[in-house]
Amino acid sequence: MEPKTKINAEDGRQELMITRDFDLSLELLFKAHVEPELVAQWMGTNVLKLDTRKHGSYQFATADPKGNKHRFNGVIHQFIPNEKITRTFEMEGTPFEAQLEFLEFQKLSEDTSRLNMHIVYRSTSQRDQMLKMGMRQGMNMAHNRLEEAAGKLK
Amino acid sequence: MEPKTKINAEDGRQELMITRDFDLSLELLFKAHVEPELVAQWMGTNVLKLDTRKHGSYQFATADPKGNKHRFNGVIHQFIPNEKITRTFEMEGTPFEAQLEFLEFQKLSEDTSRLNMHIVYRSTSQRDQMLKMGMRQGMNMAHNRLEEAAGKLK
Repeated sequence: MEPKTKINAEDGRQELMITRDFDLSLELLFKAHVEPELVAQWMGTNVLKLDTRKHGSYQFATADPKGNKHRFNGVIHQFIPNEKITRTFEMEGTPFEAQLEFLEFQKLSEDTSRLNMHIVYRSTSQRDQMLKMGMRQGMNMAHNRLEEAAGKLK
Repeated sequence: MEPKTKINAEDGRQELMITRDFDLSLELLFKAHVEPELVAQWMGTNVLKLDTRKHGSYQFATADPKGNKHRFNGVIHQFIPNEKITRTFEMEGTPFEAQLEFLEFQKLSEDTSRLNMHIVYRSTSQRDQMLKMGMRQGMNMAHNRLEEAAGKLK
């Protein structure tokens, strides 16, 4: 089955264009990106800090099935409720550096919505390595969990 | 005279590589990027906020010679004293969006140092517009002022 989350990676660029339509209202889709409890559910992570406002920041910690611990963090550059979040994201303790993410939220109908994510990397090779690590499948699965978790709040 | 601040803009990319050597110790060069009074001097701006730490943020306001007001802001993703700052930067009220900046500080000798800046833009066209607006000259002049202002602290 084709993944619902579409990732467009143009050859030689240092960016990704990601689009996903959800059977969720715009408000629920946005809530799933800012409410710590919901974020924890669909990202499968512990939310140590999630200060979703302009110039806020976040810190997540998780353990993979083998018990390895991973930490993620970033800062929020721009925050417009139900419309846009511009933030950085970094997987700590890896060779990957901070990436810049533009998340744009769009109402399609009363109970459907679209997420457009534009991710800009420090280099083409860092982007390509992310894809090789299974980012396409991982993000699609995470978005499936998002839809399920937020859908319970309908 | 050739500008001392070198900006390398590869065709079709969405990034700039900037290098400048200073007749300043590493510590003074770094200080010029974090001390509000010094930043205000060489950037010619009012520093409304400058919280230089991991997950900190900043806000500057300035007026150009015609009296037009401009505001700039960003968040600090990573902060390693005398070594590295990763941050976002945005000129408010313009079509330009947040850019991601990696500043790396390097000691050359006891009283000389190098700044490497890698700026990543949302698009090639946003980068190219920045260059057209006179960024090469502007950054070189600002770095000249930096060297002069910080040099007084020797």
